[in-house]
Amino acid sequence: MSKKKAVVLVSGGMDSCVTAAVAAQNYEPCFLHVNYGQKTENRESKAFEALCLAYGIKRKLVVDISYLREIGGSSLTDDAIEVEEGELDRQGIPKTYVPFRNANILSIAASWAEVLEASAIFIGAVEEDGSGYPDCRRVFYDAFEAAIDAGTRPETKIKIETPLISMKKCDIVKLGKELGAPLELSWSCYKSEDEACGECDSCLLRLRGFKQAGYEDPIPYKKR
Amino acid sequence: MSKKKAVVLVSGGMDSCVTAAVAAQNYEPCFLHVNYGQKTENRESKAFEALCLAYGIKRKLVVDISYLREIGGSSLTDDAIEVEEGELDRQGIPKTYVPFRNANILSIAASWAEVLEASAIFIGAVEEDGSGYPDCRRVFYDAFEAAIDAGTRPETKIKIETPLISMKKCDIVKLGKELGAPLELSWSCYKSEDEACGECDSCLLRLRGFKQAGYEDPIPYKKR
Repeated sequence: MSKKKAVVLVSGGMDSCVTAAVAAQNYEPCFLHVNYGQKTENRESKAFEALCLAYGIKRKLVVDISYLREIGGSSLTDDAIEVEEGELDRQGIPKTYVPFRNANILSIAASWAEVLEASAIFIGAVEEDGSGYPDCRRVFYDAFEAAIDAGTRPETKIKIETPLISMKKCDIVKLGKELGAPLELSWSCYKSEDEACGECDSCLLRLRGFKQAGYEDPIPYKKR
Repeated sequence: MSKKKAVVLVSGGMDSCVTAAVAAQNYEPCFLHVNYGQKTENRESKAFEALCLAYGIKRKLVVDISYLREIGGSSLTDDAIEVEEGELDRQGIPKTYVPFRNANILSIAASWAEVLEASAIFIGAVEEDGSGYPDCRRVFYDAFEAAIDAGTRPETKIKIETPLISMKKCDIVKLGKELGAPLELSWSCYKSEDEACGECDSCLLRLRGFKQAGYEDPIPYKKR
C-alpha cells in the first residue's frame, strides 16, 4: 500500500530539515518552498533544492509570494527596516516578524494538500526560544486547522503537524542527528548568503542549539 | 477624525462592487484585487481599476497568486477542466471551486490589514444561491477570524465582514441600487471577456438577480 501524502513546508532552514525527516517516517513527503521576497531567498532556494535531492522527493512546489515584500512591515522583506543584531532574550515581537506570513504559507499548503488528497501539513515552527512570532504558536495552528476544516470539501481532512513546536533548539539538533537529517544542507541565516553571519537571531539560536547538543555546526560561518 | 480603514476584496464582480459600497459607509476602503490565473483575469482587472476610480480609492493593492493555477483542481484555473454550463440547483461542490482559494486571499488581506492597522476585512461572499463553495460560508469566516486573532500581534483586531453572506442575488442588486454602487462597471462572467456569456453559473445567478429585482442588467451579453 502506498503511503499517505503530507505537504512539508521546507524553507531550507534547520527546523524544516528536521521536520522533513519526521514527516518521512510515516508519509510520502511533498515539499513546498515559498519565496516571499526575503533577503536571503537565493540561498534558501539552493538549500531547498539540495534537500529535495537528499530526501528523494517526487512532488515539489515552489511558490512566489513576494507580494509580502510590497505589503512590507518587516525587516526581512523591507529594505528600509534593518535586520536587528541578534538578542536571545528580546521581549515582544521582533522586527523580523512578517505580518501573518505563516497563514499565507499554510493557505498555499492547504490548497495543494486538498488537490493532492494529502492528510497532513508539516511545519517546523518552534514556540520556544522566545522568537515571539504570534504565527509560530500552537494556538494559531489549532485555529488554522479549524479554518481548513471549515473551508474545504467535507471529505478533506488535513492535520497541521508541528513536531518541533515545544522543542528547544538543542533537542532539534539531537533529533536531526538521530534521524539522519542532512543538517549540512540547511541554511538559517537571515542576513548572509555565502557564509552565515553568526550574529542575527537565527544564527545565534542555531549556534547555541548545536553547542548545547554537543555537536559542531557543519555550515560555514564568517570569521569574527 | 479620519475614518478607520478596511481592506475590501474587490474581484470586480457585482457582489464585491456592492460590498465596497457598504464598506465605504463607515470606513476608508482599501481595495485588494487578487489574480489567481483565472480565465477572465484581464476583464476582472479592468473592472477593478474602474471601480477604484469610481470609489476614489487612495490605497489599492493588486496581488498575483497564479500559483493556484499550478496547483490546479478547478475549472477556473485548469485548462483541462471545462467550466460547466450553468445549473442553478446543482447539488454538491461545483468544478469551479478553487481549493481553499478564499483562505489564500484572506491571508493576504490580513497581512495588509495588519500593516495598515485596518480594523476590518470586507468580502462579498454569498452563502445562498446554492453556490456550494465551502469557503463561502460564514462558518469558515468565523474560523478564519479566530485564526487571524491567534496569528497576529496582540493589538491587531481584524473583523471579517460579510455583509452579503445571507442575501439573495436580487436583494444584492436592490442594495447596490440603493447605495448607488456602479454596477455597470462590474463583471461576473466566468467564461468571456468582451460580452458576458449569459450561460455560466455566475451569469445565470446575476441575470436572475436583476430580473427578480426588477432591473435591467447594464452590462453587455452575447446574443443567443
